[in-house]
Amino acid sequence: SNPFDPTNDPHRRYNPMTGDWVLVSPHRAKRPWQGQSDEPSNEPKPAYDPNCYLCPGNTRVNGERNERYSGTFIFENDFAALKKDTVAASDHDELFTFETEQGCSRVICFSPDHSKTLPELTHEERLQVVECWKAQTAELGKTYGWVQVFENKGAMMGCSNPHPHGQVWAQQHLPTEPAKKCRQFGDYFARHGRSMLFDYAQREVEKQERVVCSNDDWLVVVPYWAAWPFETLLLPLFKVQSLAVLTASQSASLAQIIGDITVRYDNLFETSFPYSMGWHSAPFDGKPHDEWQLHAHFYPPLLRSASVRKFMVGYELMAETQRDLTPEQAAQRLKALPDTHYKKVNA
Amino acid sequence: SNPFDPTNDPHRRYNPMTGDWVLVSPHRAKRPWQGQSDEPSNEPKPAYDPNCYLCPGNTRVNGERNERYSGTFIFENDFAALKKDTVAASDHDELFTFETEQGCSRVICFSPDHSKTLPELTHEERLQVVECWKAQTAELGKTYGWVQVFENKGAMMGCSNPHPHGQVWAQQHLPTEPAKKCRQFGDYFARHGRSMLFDYAQREVEKQERVVCSNDDWLVVVPYWAAWPFETLLLPLFKVQSLAVLTASQSASLAQIIGDITVRYDNLFETSFPYSMGWHSAPFDGKPHDEWQLHAHFYPPLLRSASVRKFMVGYELMAETQRDLTPEQAAQRLKALPDTHYKKVNA
Ligand SMILES: O=P(O)(O)O[C@H]1O[C@H](CO)[C@@H](O)[C@H](O)[C@H]1O
Ligand SMILES: O=P(O)(O)O[C@H]1O[C@H](CO)[C@@H](O)[C@H](O)[C@H]1O
Repeated sequence: SNPFDPTNDPHRRYNPMTGDWVLVSPHRAKRPWQGQSDEPSNEPKPAYDPNCYLCPGNTRVNGERNERYSGTFIFENDFAALKKDTVAASDHDELFTFETEQGCSRVICFSPDHSKTLPELTHEERLQVVECWKAQTAELGKTYGWVQVFENKGAMMGCSNPHPHGQVWAQQHLPTEPAKKCRQFGDYFARHGRSMLFDYAQREVEKQERVVCSNDDWLVVVPYWAAWPFETLLLPLFKVQSLAVLTASQSASLAQIIGDITVRYDNLFETSFPYSMGWHSAPFDGKPHDEWQLHAHFYPPLLRSASVRKFMVGYELMAETQRDLTPEQAAQRLKALPDTHYKKVNA
Repeated sequence: SNPFDPTNDPHRRYNPMTGDWVLVSPHRAKRPWQGQSDEPSNEPKPAYDPNCYLCPGNTRVNGERNERYSGTFIFENDFAALKKDTVAASDHDELFTFETEQGCSRVICFSPDHSKTLPELTHEERLQVVECWKAQTAELGKTYGWVQVFENKGAMMGCSNPHPHGQVWAQQHLPTEPAKKCRQFGDYFARHGRSMLFDYAQREVEKQERVVCSNDDWLVVVPYWAAWPFETLLLPLFKVQSLAVLTASQSASLAQIIGDITVRYDNLFETSFPYSMGWHSAPFDGKPHDEWQLHAHFYPPLLRSASVRKFMVGYELMAETQRDLTPEQAAQRLKALPDTHYKKVNA
């Protein structure tokens, strides 16, 4: 019988960060697609849009007026999912358990320029975004146990405004996904005395099978257990638990690597590449977190082209995530792309 | 200070089936939506479409010709995610764990009529679908440890063909989601000597706050911990572990309740309501599963109208699921709807 061929044989891979598995069915990539196609709008956008509620000087739906900002700009979400003054209450009936939640949700505009997303900003502008993430994490970590910095990019990822922006939601309790990681990272640390993601980054650097790009401080890989077709994991090559404590030079190298991976993403299908991305710093619970390494996830939905996405639906929701190409195939494609933005090359 | 008001105060609810939490932010339902709108096609479809690869007598992409079927029709998926003859292989390196998977994927056409989905079929036609799910579960359960019956309905849920159909994927290993349930159901059974979902159904019948519809054998509720806006859980009111062992009368009452909930769904926004649904019978591992009750999930994406969905994106993927109305509000809306299909009423 033939030996196992990961590019042809269905197999499951284990995600040690969450304890979940993913079903890899690489031969499925050949199937024709007759379903929904989301045509991207590749129309050029103006640098200022008088109807955009995020552009400088414009008025938002609640009547507040944005500053005439020049770098990043932060404000409380007008329809915040979390509120700071929620009354404390809970019930621990085994089948009907709830607890109230206190927190806050802020919007972070990345740039006054309506037309440019992260990969199109200059290095200095991207560095301002990194510094803003750091400052927000440090500030909110003083009050809340969990600070979730994230960006939904593109209409396909539920983003309701193309103006470049992200969000930060902070809350009292540790949410489900980081709670899983605390458990898994803690187990690994108890066995090895080292952090799982620090070890993992070393192993990926040695193997070089899934590395997309790197610099002296940071590494981007398609993780061995990636769920989304072109999912990546951004890891530090040094020990660090939180965005809040990055040095100036680590922030600068971070701005560089974020430019690198987001430019590759845009270049993959020559479109403004949609994704949700987010940062996981260690919880702010006053405990040491030697088991934890700071990291970011990029979860992009596109599979075959700028208009055909992967749907995480029936089997995925009921059984487990399923993917149609191997993480190694995805990494090779991203790695082979130029690191100059296609709009600059085509200009 | 005011007492806790679930329709206004952000809170988290615990899902005892999976161990995950959901953030409920009901005041968010008021926010205006300027993002992606998916216009549904409400054009009438023909009963037979010569270009549909699922219609009776038509040829599929691999050259095979469909039977001129009259009831349900089953065939092996032409681009199966699982294959029965995969070579056995695995590696248990802690950071790079994989195992090969054997299985099969089949397509189940619900009806020869291209134009009708489950809520528009007759009771007898729906009963044939139930009997087909039963037979497939029983047959595949002889070979595989897990049998996943599911339906992706609507382009929004990745369905590539409007012809009414579902799928069944069967495999050797227990996938991630049912593995979580085995653990949680097992813990509950160890503590109480009863199955969690049997107890839960009784409690919901008593409370009547989240019941959408029911008959002598079956109950549909918006679960206390629902993630999707109009998510429902279909539960038996009697003890049963698997679709495979339903009696004729239990199948008939199941066909009735499926008609009821899917008609309500179509009536909510007067559109063919998209969802992913799927069945969880106990694993076929030769062990007793007294902790397990058969159940089905419906996960529908729509939030505000036929064209505006809930996006499970940044915060949801990075932190935890977030919802914009309470499960009680969703249940009341579904319960208040007529159980006759709007197309019949409007005809
Ligand atoms: O029905 P299809 O075309 O095989 O595929 C659909 O259902 C599958 C199982 O949920 C998903 O993996 C695909 O992303 C979806 O498009
Ligand atoms: O950015 P918005 O408009 O607040 O909302 C968007 O991101 C939120 C956080 O991931 C999601 O809950 C919403 O479904 C999505 O549309």
